[in-house]
Order: sequence, then structure tokens, then C-alpha cells
Amino acid sequence: MSELTIWTYDWVPQGPRGFVRDLRLRWACEEAGIPYAVRTVPFDGRETNHLARQPFGQVPFLSDGELQMFESGAGLLHLAWKSDKLMPRDPAGQARTLQWVIAALNSIEMVSVPWWFLTIAGNADNGLAGWMGKRLRQLEDVLSGRHWLAAERFTVADLLMADVLRVPKVRAFGNRPATESYVARATDRPAFKKAYADQMAHFGAADKRRA
Amino acid sequence: MSELTIWTYDWVPQGPRGFVRDLRLRWACEEAGIPYAVRTVPFDGRETNHLARQPFGQVPFLSDGELQMFESGAGLLHLAWKSDKLMPRDPAGQARTLQWVIAALNSIEMVSVPWWFLTIAGNADNGLAGWMGKRLRQLEDVLSGRHWLAAERFTVADLLMADVLRVPKVRAFGNRPATESYVARATDRPAFKKAYADQMAHFGAADKRRA
Repeated sequence: MSELTIWTYDWVPQGPRGFVRDLRLRWACEEAGIPYAVRTVPFDGRETNHLARQPFGQVPFLSDGELQMFESGAGLLHLAWKSDKLMPRDPAGQARTLQWVIAALNSIEMVSVPWWFLTIAGNADNGLAGWMGKRLRQLEDVLSGRHWLAAERFTVADLLMADVLRVPKVRAFGNRPATESYVARATDRPAFKKAYADQMAHFGAADKRRA
Repeated sequence: MSELTIWTYDWVPQGPRGFVRDLRLRWACEEAGIPYAVRTVPFDGRETNHLARQPFGQVPFLSDGELQMFESGAGLLHLAWKSDKLMPRDPAGQARTLQWVIAALNSIEMVSVPWWFLTIAGNADNGLAGWMGKRLRQLEDVLSGRHWLAAERFTVADLLMADVLRVPKVRAFGNRPATESYVARATDRPAFKKAYADQMAHFGAADKRRA
């Protein structure tokens, strides 16, 4: 039995399938060749049924032997220290990987997720659209000059940034060809496809059990 | 001359003083006893004058010998690996510190900064208020049961979370006594007071040069 376990919900509605963040951890394990198991907490009652392990009632969280941790970004960095496939081992490569992981979480997703949240609540022209456009243009400028963010090759920073950017409404926001080809390049990787298919199959199998 | 340099603006208006994020890095260095220098890029022209070092035109960024990195959260983790005053050295303590650093950036600040942004733009009852209230209540529950987030003592996770929570409009959002005493406990530390006073003095001295 694998020591590393990715925890997710036992089921989710159709909407979030393919985007539940256990996919980030699955993808990282697939890239690195790290064996893992997937276990679940009930979607019903999620607000309170696993607060001891995830105080915001969300998924994923990770257990690795005796260690437990929540936040997919933290789990990705934890996995990155296990494998140089996810993060270079030289100090400059590590620093750049770390900075772009945090940039995905705190410079891009900090605006893209709240913008998306207000948009699906029915307010597409919400007060975050200007900030959103500015950040995505700045990132487009960066991606116009390089294939991958932190090194000459794919790192966990690209895994996370591509996962942030592949959300359909974000992907459709403006015309950003370098970003579009970056997202296509990342999601064309076999490890992404495997993680995505596995998540879809996981929730699909749950439909049959609930039926 | 110190090898470690924190880069910030040469001047900012009164509003953001005391909250420019170089304070996070100053505070961490003061806690850890790491010597550092402070250098500047011009506030005027900030959108484009240092994009090679910070692609979103922001501050702070850090240089450490040959290494350069942006994102205050990344800088804090970089500093945390230099000193056990910022992060415990046992694997469980490290994992908990890392998870709470990311939680501050991606579970709390992801809603608190956009909520604040819409609020100061004149929309206090904006569409993020419900999400904001939920996250802050969940965090209040966590802080009701412990003094510090990741260990039995202060870590860089508390430095970051307290810096996220001490924003006046965030601090005034609802009645959350455990959170309020947590913020007071963190900002009462001599290292915070020194970092805060130094930032205020830095921008104050710039007023005289501009006058």
C-alpha cells in the first residue's frame, strides 16, 4: 500500500469535475512517478465532516506517512522536494520555481478565482475585470518570451500556473496567444491527461454508486 | 555590506505606508536576526521600470547573493529555510508551517484582498462579503483553539497570516475575538514594531527628498 494518499470528495456534481484540486496533486505524482492512493471524505456534509484535517471544509489534503497537510499549493511544494522532475535542484532553479508557484497562487489566482466567482454569480462585468485583464496581460508578456516559467523545462510552477489558467472562463478572457499555447502545451502532457481521466473516472464511478 | 537585499519603492503615498509588503521581509529578517539592506526602485514609472525583476511591476523582491526572487510569500519561505526561528526543523512542523503560509496566501488573502479592493472602490456590500465572512469565521474557530498556527510558537506562517489580517478593514470585519487577540499578539512583537517603524521612516525620509 502506498504511503502517500491524496484525499478528495467521494462525489461532486458535474460542474467541477476535471477541476477539483486533487487533480493538481495527482498530476504532480504522475509527473514524478510517485506512487499514491486516493481516498475520500463525503461530499455531503463537507462543510463540517473533515474540519480537523482541512479547516475550511475543502479538498484536497495529503497524507504522507505520519505527515498530514492541506492546501494544494503546499502539497505541490511538498511533492517537489521529493523529485527533481518537479523542481530543479540548483538554488537558482529552486528559487525561480518557488517564486512562480507563489505567483500562480497570489498574483494570478488571487484575482482570477474571485473574478470567476463573481462572474458565475451573474456579474460578468464585475469590479475585478480591470485587475484581471492587467495581470493576464503581464503574464502574456512573460510567456511570450519563454516556454516554461521557472526553468528551461516543465516544473511544478508550470503545473500550477497552467491549472490556474485552464479554467474555461479564464482561458476565454481576451486574446492571449502565448498563454493559450502554454496552457495547451502543459495540458497535452501525458501526466495531465492521466490525472484528468482518473479524476473523471473517480467521480463517474461515484454516480453509479449513488444511482 | 549585507548580501541580502530587500527591494521596495523609493516612496509611496500615505495610504499604503505601514502595509507595503517589504514589511513582511523586514519582519522576517528581524525575527531571525538576518542582516539585510534595503534598496529601492522608483515609485514613479513602477508599472514598467523594473519588469525584468518583478513582472507585475510590484514590490518587494529579494536578492540574496546571486539569487533573485519576487513574491513576498516566496521570499518568506526562502528566509524560513535560513533560520529555525521562522520554521521548525522537524518534518511535521515544516509541513504545518508550509500549509499555513499557503493558506494565508490562497485561502484567506485570496478573498480578503479582492474584497478590500472592491470595498475601497466604493462597494462595501460587494459579492465577496459572504465568502469573506465564511473564511474569517473558519479561521476564528482555528485560532480559538491555539496561540500560533503551525507550532507551539510563532513561525513565518503567523507572520504572514497576521500581516494579512491586520489590514484595518479586514480587522474590523465582524467580531472575532480570537483573531483580534492573535493579530495583537503578533504585531506586539519587537521584530514587527522595528520593521513597521523602519518602513515608516523610510517613506517619511523620502517625503523630505521630494519636498
